[in-house]
Formats: sequence, structure tokens, C-alpha cells
Amino acid sequence: MDYETPQFFRVMQYARRAERDVVDMVSGNPDWEPPQALREGLTSYAQADSSEFQYPPSIGLTDLRDEIASRRGVKRNQVIVTNGAGEANHLAMSAGFEQFPGSEIVLVDPVYPYYVGRAQLLGADVSFVPAADDGHVAPDHVAEVISDETAVIVVNTPNNPLGVTYPASTMEALVGLAESHDAVLVSDEVYDHFDYGGNFSSALHVDSPNRIVTNSFSKSMAITGWRVGYAVFPERDGPTAALFERARTQHMLTNVTGSRPVQQAVYHALQETEPTYYQDTRDRLTRRIKMFTTALDAAGAAYTKPEGGFYVLARFPGFPGTMENVETLIDDAGVAGMPGEAFGESRADWLRFALVTPRVETAAERLAAYFG
Amino acid sequence: MDYETPQFFRVMQYARRAERDVVDMVSGNPDWEPPQALREGLTSYAQADSSEFQYPPSIGLTDLRDEIASRRGVKRNQVIVTNGAGEANHLAMSAGFEQFPGSEIVLVDPVYPYYVGRAQLLGADVSFVPAADDGHVAPDHVAEVISDETAVIVVNTPNNPLGVTYPASTMEALVGLAESHDAVLVSDEVYDHFDYGGNFSSALHVDSPNRIVTNSFSKSMAITGWRVGYAVFPERDGPTAALFERARTQHMLTNVTGSRPVQQAVYHALQETEPTYYQDTRDRLTRRIKMFTTALDAAGAAYTKPEGGFYVLARFPGFPGTMENVETLIDDAGVAGMPGEAFGESRADWLRFALVTPRVETAAERLAAYFG
Repeated sequence: MDYETPQFFRVMQYARRAERDVVDMVSGNPDWEPPQALREGLTSYAQADSSEFQYPPSIGLTDLRDEIASRRGVKRNQVIVTNGAGEANHLAMSAGFEQFPGSEIVLVDPVYPYYVGRAQLLGADVSFVPAADDGHVAPDHVAEVISDETAVIVVNTPNNPLGVTYPASTMEALVGLAESHDAVLVSDEVYDHFDYGGNFSSALHVDSPNRIVTNSFSKSMAITGWRVGYAVFPERDGPTAALFERARTQHMLTNVTGSRPVQQAVYHALQETEPTYYQDTRDRLTRRIKMFTTALDAAGAAYTKPEGGFYVLARFPGFPGTMENVETLIDDAGVAGMPGEAFGESRADWLRFALVTPRVETAAERLAAYFG
Repeated sequence: MDYETPQFFRVMQYARRAERDVVDMVSGNPDWEPPQALREGLTSYAQADSSEFQYPPSIGLTDLRDEIASRRGVKRNQVIVTNGAGEANHLAMSAGFEQFPGSEIVLVDPVYPYYVGRAQLLGADVSFVPAADDGHVAPDHVAEVISDETAVIVVNTPNNPLGVTYPASTMEALVGLAESHDAVLVSDEVYDHFDYGGNFSSALHVDSPNRIVTNSFSKSMAITGWRVGYAVFPERDGPTAALFERARTQHMLTNVTGSRPVQQAVYHALQETEPTYYQDTRDRLTRRIKMFTTALDAAGAAYTKPEGGFYVLARFPGFPGTMENVETLIDDAGVAGMPGEAFGESRADWLRFALVTPRVETAAERLAAYFG
């Protein structure tokens, strides 16, 4: 949602002031219904005994941690429930930076801008690995950038803004690089339910004391404003048990605990929601991707083939993704996207389009007509 | 709620394993009903359009910030809604420590232990001002401890664990000391609705660029697990506007935003809840205080006269508040309190009793009988 990028505000403001109808493909908020059981869970909680309105355990409701652990194939004592994936990533990066030697955090460019802000908040030096031409991250390229100074590597799969999903071989190689450089891989997997090709592979599948996995229910249950996420730390009897301890202390001292009503509702929804709910959202997005990339083809655009997540990164011929062209596209085509420069240098002349709007078809038609 | 103090866990565990009935006067969770409008607000939110389930503004729902600003007599642009007072205090201390010169944070002893943990998390040196014999903090004593190295002073009024409420003259003097030493006063006022003598005076009444006020709805609405708090920063056109900016950035990068359902419910409850709700809780606690201090008198105990908040700090003759005596009191009297050492040195041989249990009368009778 890019609150921190001035570009985000500028584009939204420009689109709002435009004298024509504009399809918003800037915001990353799901536009579909949450699971019905989530509404039921919150409604039921609102009538609970008032003792249930008091502090939950600092690291999260035990039932919810059990449910997460069981679904992810880890132990409950590896799980901390957080205020969304935002806090989970902050805690993971902070613990990794504290516990591993080195002053550097390695990120992939194009990058989700919050990672950069969080690294800077920690006082870390930031190095970037440019994404390969196909949008994936090549472990060889990471090996060129990583050094003894690297304490943390952060990746996001399925990826925002590129829409790629890293295969198991990439995840294994990344964890291996973290191990061989005395660093930790933080794998942010908030889009794991939006894997269209079936290629998603969690870093949890690589058993290692050098990886932390973060996630949330913000996207999978369409509740970005509720703030329920989690981090899964390495096994507690291993050599990196201090990562969990550090994160637990920091979470306790900064947030005390996450909000209990939403934890309770998510726990209820996890139990009651059928797999068809998630399949339906995937089907909806698959249709939108097809519609949108067909229009991109008609417009002669280059784009990273979307394998997961909500976004398409595209480049139109002779129309670099500058802020000026973003404004032109709003005025002349009625479609608002984000300039690539908001996500770093490697795709600075591309444009990011979010597919979380029911008006993807309209946008596709407008772009095809404008560029066609 | 003292999650971080090993003593808290130890006492609770000991009380749970006792072979007799024990009145829990350890936990600080309100035991009464939240406002009815709070339940209604959450129930209604659970059926809202799913667009209302997405990210609120990072610094909080605008309506809620307006309502807080109007009640506190400040501008909306001074207010950040946080994940409870816990995060508000963390942000305030962190921003103060970053923006003011010096490596030291000054606290009052006895102390709410989280303040110490937060200061340590920031890497600050911690100095303590012992509370005066009457439980208040004497500005003269603060003047003796404060130095050019002081960046932040943190106070809590009404006070946990002492139960005192600082008068306006104290608040003015404390803000004055912050001003004259190029520091910031952080005044944590979460118990402001529990002022039994009418002496409470918010630091907001002292107009200054050198004070931040923190608060939450956890106590006033009996929802410690919901996590809705706020911080009020100095005026944004003043010399310390950077405090707000720093806190806003840190909040955004660490939590992204607070949980929206609870913000919406609290906003509704603020509008719909009559003053009688708060008066009823005060009346209830006033009765409990009278019952409990009468028993303390019968037991020959010394105690700090409760003026506000939930707690009574007491010392029984020949029965110092060690962990051993806490256990004896559980076994022999059936009352669980907290050892004074959990809150620092100046009241290490006292005991803290929380009055947020419907069984205060039973506890009072047991203590009077045991010591009488």
C-alpha cells in the first residue's frame, strides 16, 4: 500500500483530480469479500465474556499459533503472531541484523519500498540484487552481491511488484547462501495463496537455522486493515534460537501484544473456510491476468509474465514509466498505474498495475485502444 | 500486565498451583464490562462493506483522531493512533531519545517495568528518581537526577504501582525541567479516567514543545487486549515538529498501521458512551479502595493512599514484600500480590495489590484476619 512513497500519494491525488473517469490500478487492497466465517468470528467475539477482551499472550493466542504451526508444519514455539506482515518483517529483519555479523542487508531490485525503509531504520547498509530479465532472482547474482558484511537477505515470493514466484531451487539456493555467509534469509510470503502456476515453494521447506518466514492473512482473507500476521523462526533448540528471543522481546516492548479480536476472528475463519474460497480468488485473478495481458499484447507492451500475487509490471513501446507518463496515462487513457522508479532502478522505466479492481476489463480495453 | 517480569509469571504460577483458593490481585486487567456501545460498534463493523476492512491511514482513522483531538483540546495533526499505549510510549520515548541530545532516560522508582525495558531497547542509560515518602514525585528530586545527558523523562499519572495522581504543580515543574534541560517529558496517562480525588492534571495543560502525552482506551473501556492507544505530540509548527515525524515514520515502518476494527469500535463507543459509564467504574473502584484500605488499617499496614489507578502499594509490619513472603501470603492468607522488587528498589519491601477483581472484599477480610 506504499504509504511511504511520495509517488503513491502523488499518483492517487493526480488521478482523483483528473477530469475524467480513471481506473485505479495503484492501490494494492483486495476488492473481494473476506471469508464469511471471518465476519462471523468477529461478530461472535463482540459478544464474548469481557474477560476475553483482555490481554492475550504477548506472542499471540495459543489456539491461533497452534493452527498456524500445524498448517505450516512447524512447532508452535517457532511462531509469533504479529501486527500484520509489516511487524513480522520488521521483527525478522531486526533480529537478523542484531544476531548475525555484518552491517548490510541485501534486497532484490525492484523492491517493495518498506524493506528499504526498515533497513534504514535499523541503520543498515543496503545492497541490491537486480532481478533477472525474466523477473526472477538468480542465485548467481545474489552470490555476486552477498558478502561477509551481509547479515540479512530479504526476498518476497510471490513477488511484489514483479508477479514472479520463485521455484524450490531458488529458495534452496538462497537459504544456502545465507548459511554459507553467516546471514539469515527472510522470506516474505504474504502472497502465497495467490500462486497461479503451482510453483510456489516456501522457504520453510528448506530446513535451516538461517531462515525466517513471514506471512499474514491480509491478502489471503482480504483484510489488509485488520493486522494479523506471523513470523516463523528456526527451531528453538538450534543454534539460532536467539532470533526468536530477540523478536519476542522486541514485540513485547514495542507492541505488548497484537489486537485480540482480529486474532480470534482469523482463528475462527481458518477453521471454517473451505479451500474453494481461496480457489475462487485465484480463479478471479487468473481471469483478470488473462484479460490484462491480452491487452498488453495488443498494445505491444513487454511485461513480466504474472505467476503469483496481484501485480503486473509492464513497459510500453516508446512510453517509459516516468511520473510524467503516468500522468499522461491518467489523462489520456483513464488508467492509473505506479511508476517503476517507486520500486528501485532495475525497472525504473516500467509501470506497475495492480489487478485488485473489478474494472480490470475496462482498463485493459482503454490501454489496448490507447497504445494499439 | 507485566509480561516481561519473571516475578509476574512466578507469582501467577505459584498461585495457580496452591492447594487452596487464592484471590488474584496480581493481574491488572479490568474485571468489569466494556461500554455496550463498544460491543455494538464491533458487531456493526463486522458487517461493513469489505472496503472498510482494508488499510486505514497509517496514523489512524481520521474520525478517531478528530474525536481524540477534540476531547484533548489539541489539533488532529498532533495525534497518532497506536497499538495501545505500549506502542505510544515506545514511539514517544524513541522519538525523544532520537531528537534530543543526551544518552539518558530518567524514570521514577518504583517504575512500571516496561519503561525500563523500552529504555534498554533504545540503548539508553537509565537513571531513577526515587518517589517521595508520600508516593509522589518531588520536582526537586528530579532536578537532582536530571542532567545535560537527559533526553527523555517518563512519568505515569495516575501512577502504577503507587496509586498517586500528580497535581498540576508537579506537571508544570516536570515540563519546566524538560524545557530547561533540552529534554522531553513523556507523560503516560492511561489511568486518567480513574482519578478518585479530582486532582489529575494532564501534561497537555502545560503548553510546551517539550512534552508528549500518551494514553489508551485499554483501561477506560476495559479492553486491554484490543490495542487502541494514542500519542499527542507538540504543535506541528513548533521547534519540535520532528518528534511527530520521527514517530510517524517509525510507526509506519514497524506496524504499517493499527488494527482498523478496534479503531472503528472505539470511535463508535466514544460517541455513544455516557459519562455515567466512567463514573460507575470510578464508584466501583472507590468502594474497593475503601474496603481494602480499611483492612490494611486493621492489619497495621503502611500504604500509599490511593488517589488514582488500580493499585495499592502496602507494607505489612515485620513482613517485607519479598518473593518468599508473597508465596507465604498465597499459602497462608489466600491472597496473591506482587513483590515490590518487580518495580525497582525504592519500594522493594512493599507489596502491590491490584484492585481489578470482584473479590476485593474477600481479600481484605483474609488480610485483616491474617495480620490482625
